[in-house]
Amino acid sequence: MTRVRMDLFVSLDGYTTSDPTPDDPMGPDWGRLTAAYTATRTFRERIFGDTSGAGTTGVDDTYAAAFFEGIGSEIMGAGMFGLHTFPDDPDWKGWWGDRPPFGTPVYVLTRTAPRPSISMDGGTTFHFRNAAIGDVLAEATDAAGGQDVRVGGGIGTALEFLRADLVDDLHLMVAPIVLGRGLRLWDGVPALDRSHTVTTEVAESGTIHVTFTREQHA
Amino acid sequence: MTRVRMDLFVSLDGYTTSDPTPDDPMGPDWGRLTAAYTATRTFRERIFGDTSGAGTTGVDDTYAAAFFEGIGSEIMGAGMFGLHTFPDDPDWKGWWGDRPPFGTPVYVLTRTAPRPSISMDGGTTFHFRNAAIGDVLAEATDAAGGQDVRVGGGIGTALEFLRADLVDDLHLMVAPIVLGRGLRLWDGVPALDRSHTVTTEVAESGTIHVTFTREQHA
Repeated sequence: MTRVRMDLFVSLDGYTTSDPTPDDPMGPDWGRLTAAYTATRTFRERIFGDTSGAGTTGVDDTYAAAFFEGIGSEIMGAGMFGLHTFPDDPDWKGWWGDRPPFGTPVYVLTRTAPRPSISMDGGTTFHFRNAAIGDVLAEATDAAGGQDVRVGGGIGTALEFLRADLVDDLHLMVAPIVLGRGLRLWDGVPALDRSHTVTTEVAESGTIHVTFTREQHA
Repeated sequence: MTRVRMDLFVSLDGYTTSDPTPDDPMGPDWGRLTAAYTATRTFRERIFGDTSGAGTTGVDDTYAAAFFEGIGSEIMGAGMFGLHTFPDDPDWKGWWGDRPPFGTPVYVLTRTAPRPSISMDGGTTFHFRNAAIGDVLAEATDAAGGQDVRVGGGIGTALEFLRADLVDDLHLMVAPIVLGRGLRLWDGVPALDRSHTVTTEVAESGTIHVTFTREQHA
C-alpha cells in the first residue's frame, strides 16, 4: 500500500526556514537546520557519492537511511525545483546536476505555463503539473508502482498537504536551535496526534526526531 | 549566585495552553500537557504528599526532582494565583490550600489595587506587587538569599521575562501531543541558543526535555 511520506527540518521554535528569498529559497539558516542530516554517512554517500565511510552512524543516520528507502515517486513545489529563482530559463533542470538523487518520477507543482517533462540520468524524470494536489498525488501514486510517494518542500507545498491531511508518515528533524523568525510549520495544521501515532527520539547530535504515523491509509 | 529559572509545558506545535478562560485558566488540554510530570514519583510526593513510592522514576522524575531543588523565591502572574478568576474575593489565597507547595516568598504580579501579604503554613508568603518585572525580580532575588528565583506562569508572565532575556535556566517539557491552537510560547522570544547552551533528551513517556542554560548570569 502506497503511503505518503514527508520529512521536514524544523527549529525548536517551529520554523522551517528563516528569511527565504527567491535567490536563497532555503534561507540563511538552512545549513544549521540540516547540519545533523548532512553529516550522516548515508547522506554523504547518497548525495555526494562519498563512499569513504565518513559521516555519522548514529540515530541521525538511521533516519537518513530510512529516508532513501522505498520511494517510488516524489512531489515538490515550484520553488524547491527552482522555478521561482530562474523563472525565465526554459532549460532550467533543477539544482541537482545531470544525475539528480531521486531516481524516480518527480512531479513539480507549478502555476505557470506547462513545461515538457525532462528525463535525467539515473532514472529521474521531472514532470510539471498545474493541477489540484489531490490529482497530482493520484498520478504520483500510480507512478510509484506500490512504493511510497514523498512530498518534498518547500514548506508551502508541505503545508498544503499537511492541512489537507494527506500525509501518512511525517518525520520531523528538530534541530536544537532557535531561529526567532521565519515560516512556521504548524500554522493551520490539524492536531495530527488524533489521527497518527507519535514517537520522539533524540540523536547524539541533539536533534530530536519526531514521527507521526497513520495506522491506516485514509 | 542566584539564577532565574523557568519550567514550562509546551506541545510539539509550540502551544503552552489551548483555549484558556478565567474559569479554566490552564485550558482543557492542561492535563495532557502535564501528564508525564504529574505521573512522577517526585510530583506525587511533593504535591500530593503520597509517600507510598508510587509514580514514575525515569527521566521525567529526574527533571521533576530538579524542579524542586534550590528555589529561594518565586514570581508568578495574577492569573496563576487566581486573581482573574476571583477578582472580587479579598480573602482569596490561591489554589494550593492552607499549605502551598512553595515554602518560599512568592511575588504575585498584579495591576490591581495592592493587597496585604498573606503568610501561609509551610513557609509560603504571598506578596502582591504592581511594579516593573525587573524591580520585582530584584526584590525576589534579595529574598532568595543566594538560592534561585523561579518564574512561574502563566504564559503571559513567562513571556515577559523571556522577551526581556531575564531567564538563565529554561526547562521545556515538550509533550508528544499537538494542540493546533492556543497561546504560543515562542512569539517574540529571542534566539536563546545564541546566549544559552541547549540540551535535548527524551523520556520514557515520550516527553522531550529541552534545557537552555546561560553560562554566566547577565
